[in-house]
Amino acid sequence: MEWKTAITKVEPNHIHIRGYAIQDLIGKHSFGEVVYLLFKGEMPTPAQGKLIEAVLVATVDHSVFAPSACAARFVASGGVPIQSAVAAGLSALGDHHGGAIEQCQKLLEEGVRRMQAEGKSAEEMAETLLREHKQTKKRIPGFGHPYHTADPRTLALFNLARELKQDGPHIQLAEAIGAKSEAAMGRKLVVNTDAAQAAVLAELGFPWQLARGFFVISRAAGLSAHAYEEITRERPFRAVDLKEVVYDGPADR
Amino acid sequence: MEWKTAITKVEPNHIHIRGYAIQDLIGKHSFGEVVYLLFKGEMPTPAQGKLIEAVLVATVDHSVFAPSACAARFVASGGVPIQSAVAAGLSALGDHHGGAIEQCQKLLEEGVRRMQAEGKSAEEMAETLLREHKQTKKRIPGFGHPYHTADPRTLALFNLARELKQDGPHIQLAEAIGAKSEAAMGRKLVVNTDAAQAAVLAELGFPWQLARGFFVISRAAGLSAHAYEEITRERPFRAVDLKEVVYDGPADR
Amino acid sequence: MEWKTAITKVEPNHIHIRGYAIQDLIGKHSFGEVVYLLFKGEMPTPAQGKLIEAVLVATVDHSVFAPSACAARFVASGGVPIQSAVAAGLSALGDHHGGAIEQCQKLLEEGVRRMQAEGKSAEEMAETLLREHKQTKKRIPGFGHPYHTADPRTLALFNLARELKQDGPHIQLAEAIGAKSEAAMGRKLVVNTDAAQAAVLAELGFPWQLARGFFVISRAAGLSAHAYEEITRERPFRAVDLKEVVYDGPADR
Amino acid sequence: MEWKTAITKVEPNHIHIRGYAIQDLIGKHSFGEVVYLLFKGEMPTPAQGKLIEAVLVATVDHSVFAPSACAARFVASGGVPIQSAVAAGLSALGDHHGGAIEQCQKLLEEGVRRMQAEGKSAEEMAETLLREHKQTKKRIPGFGHPYHTADPRTLALFNLARELKQDGPHIQLAEAIGAKSEAAMGRKLVVNTDAAQAAVLAELGFPWQLARGFFVISRAAGLSAHAYEEITRERPFRAVDLKEVVYDGPADR
Repeated sequence: MEWKTAITKVEPNHIHIRGYAIQDLIGKHSFGEVVYLLFKGEMPTPAQGKLIEAVLVATVDHSVFAPSACAARFVASGGVPIQSAVAAGLSALGDHHGGAIEQCQKLLEEGVRRMQAEGKSAEEMAETLLREHKQTKKRIPGFGHPYHTADPRTLALFNLARELKQDGPHIQLAEAIGAKSEAAMGRKLVVNTDAAQAAVLAELGFPWQLARGFFVISRAAGLSAHAYEEITRERPFRAVDLKEVVYDGPADR
Repeated sequence: MEWKTAITKVEPNHIHIRGYAIQDLIGKHSFGEVVYLLFKGEMPTPAQGKLIEAVLVATVDHSVFAPSACAARFVASGGVPIQSAVAAGLSALGDHHGGAIEQCQKLLEEGVRRMQAEGKSAEEMAETLLREHKQTKKRIPGFGHPYHTADPRTLALFNLARELKQDGPHIQLAEAIGAKSEAAMGRKLVVNTDAAQAAVLAELGFPWQLARGFFVISRAAGLSAHAYEEITRERPFRAVDLKEVVYDGPADR
Repeated sequence: MEWKTAITKVEPNHIHIRGYAIQDLIGKHSFGEVVYLLFKGEMPTPAQGKLIEAVLVATVDHSVFAPSACAARFVASGGVPIQSAVAAGLSALGDHHGGAIEQCQKLLEEGVRRMQAEGKSAEEMAETLLREHKQTKKRIPGFGHPYHTADPRTLALFNLARELKQDGPHIQLAEAIGAKSEAAMGRKLVVNTDAAQAAVLAELGFPWQLARGFFVISRAAGLSAHAYEEITRERPFRAVDLKEVVYDGPADR
Repeated sequence: MEWKTAITKVEPNHIHIRGYAIQDLIGKHSFGEVVYLLFKGEMPTPAQGKLIEAVLVATVDHSVFAPSACAARFVASGGVPIQSAVAAGLSALGDHHGGAIEQCQKLLEEGVRRMQAEGKSAEEMAETLLREHKQTKKRIPGFGHPYHTADPRTLALFNLARELKQDGPHIQLAEAIGAKSEAAMGRKLVVNTDAAQAAVLAELGFPWQLARGFFVISRAAGLSAHAYEEITRERPFRAVDLKEVVYDGPADR
């Protein structure tokens, strides 16, 4: 079997990531810059690197209000090494848990293409997209949140993008969808963290297929903390109480 | 079931990690600083944060010369979402694959305790430890590497620790073990990246039980890149060739 | 959080699976019968149970010619508990690795519906489906195999189904597609084990969404054997040789 | 890289498991017999096969009163393929969740060795072991259960073993420990399913290192049913309620 890779060259005493010697990265580039390098093959500008670092910070944890955290804690309580619990948690980051990043990035990219092709402003395109989703009764991925009506992660990410002059049409379109949602849909849809990440990653030119990669890395941190907390603070074998369960299957036979 | 956690407080429009509002972290603190905060409960000094960022960079990838990368690529080739492949790869980070970080950190911490209790220098303790391991024919965890005779990651991490004035007895002891190994064991044992991380994490006061957490986060980046490369560059269902397999079980019956 | 389930009722000293007391299952019903019960909610007839037992036997292992087995062995070599290695292997059973069972079951079910609606024989429908796939240049899921030109698992499963009088239109259609493939496509397409399972599960009335479940259970056995063999017969840290890797990324910079 | 295996030989149109052609297993041997063959390398007698089939049936599910089931359901709710959810659940089968099978098997094997060396009866050895554990304040692995005071799985498995004339000293010792526990410890310790499996597997001559393998295969069935039920009956993204969480970390700062 041949193993072909363009990521890292390893030779005795040499580790080169996308052409850069590891000793020229350690202490000289941030982890976010190196993630950018790994994923894109090129070193980011300092502004791009700062923005990726912020993307990684933004989604680092959301307490146990995430199926991944509960999964990691249940697995940790089974008496397994920490990496197993984190792995199980990460495996939950599917279509309903972070998957909106991809879907939203596709939507924003298509929206920006149409803005340019049809000569529309972000506001006009937002209204068009909202109308189209309302007509087909589809949810707009990345908008709306069960708890947050103003997602602090979105505001901070978009402010930072503006400061770093990395804001562009994808971010404008995301903001416009949020701003126009109440008029179009009858209720305000918050631009949630999935949409914020999607907009930033689209601005930075990452393919949407890689979007989940950033979330996986970021949330690995929060899940490690949850697994460690479960192991050190809780009794083994986290157990549902008999009273919390409703059995509604066939009667005894 | 009660969920108790001291990591993150989530309330409508508020996400506070170890007491810090997420919007005060995004763009203002590096990812490494936030990982430190998550794991330790307190914000690092800038020097400590820089060192953690470097620890995360150092182990980001080692090409396919790591069972985790091969596992992630085989799993990715089965046609699964990217987070599944990364999770499978991370689950390989066990006692023989990064586990030396923990073992080495325990060794260095015990060594430093003995240095202080017995009034020994790092060099004297290194000689003692080498002699003890030679007598019991045990490998010293974190020392020696199949490819590298001078691990570029170790040199860069230790140099950075010195620059940032974060070097201390654990790093000195690790270096002394490497330096004295040839005289004691008959062959030079390189201070590999596991030992380098162990020494740095011990200096920063992390419990060894959490050491694997840093590696899990860091390597999630490399594994994401490998999973994406496998999916985009290779044919599905990575297959061993019939000629590469030796069957040595019972004959047909 | 409420946990609602119709699978198993647990009360002190009582474990009832789909209504049957566990002590009335142990030693009285085969594992295959209990899997059928778990998945369908009803006890199978003895013939149906025997067929499910055979489905579970058929896919129990395919040596290392399966990405799941290689993944499990790489993970096991990292020094992790056996369940972690099996879990990683199972996570590879995706769209390209067993996923054809689902796709094929959908195809066969749709084919049988059309046979009945259009008054066609299995042979006629097979010709229609082959022609349609040829025109759209799509592969027919479950047909063709890299090594086997007559899959011994298929023959045995279909023979058993006939013996047990459980053969019906889905099996007939699968066989007809195989038989007619050479005339239609210019090369013989073997009815592989994915198609055989799909046809049997369709006959037994399982939804295609559950098809992968049988494969997961069955292959858990083979993967456990591989993980144990790796741990007991091989050196830790299964490593790719430097000479097996081609790096084709950016040059040093 | 060489792949060496004694499990399965695959050649074009030939799949031989431990020397047996797959077509001679399908429909002719139970799944339990094939698992025995895979793990031990030899075909069991019919009685041994029947007992293994019963071991697999006994632990097939325990509702959501198992961290593995809750983990699988949380992961499934993230919107992932079924095999990912099952894999995550299985990864929880660690030292505190099924791990007692191994520990108990070691205890029973050591106990039987001592019975033979010291010429003691099962009752005498049970009293010795209970006294030793009481003195060192260690729990006896496999004995005691949070819900069951008479585990129906144990009774059924041991009765079957007797019927099949597969009961021997390990089963006698396990029963004696249960019977003598109240007198020795002040409270009755039920022989739970972990101990029952351990005793049976020891009778059948399996190494304790493989004990968890049987549990992994068996529980893969229950977890598949839970994952499927979660996906088909519940809303995506299973979420903890804000009111169920107690945050006790640092105050806002």
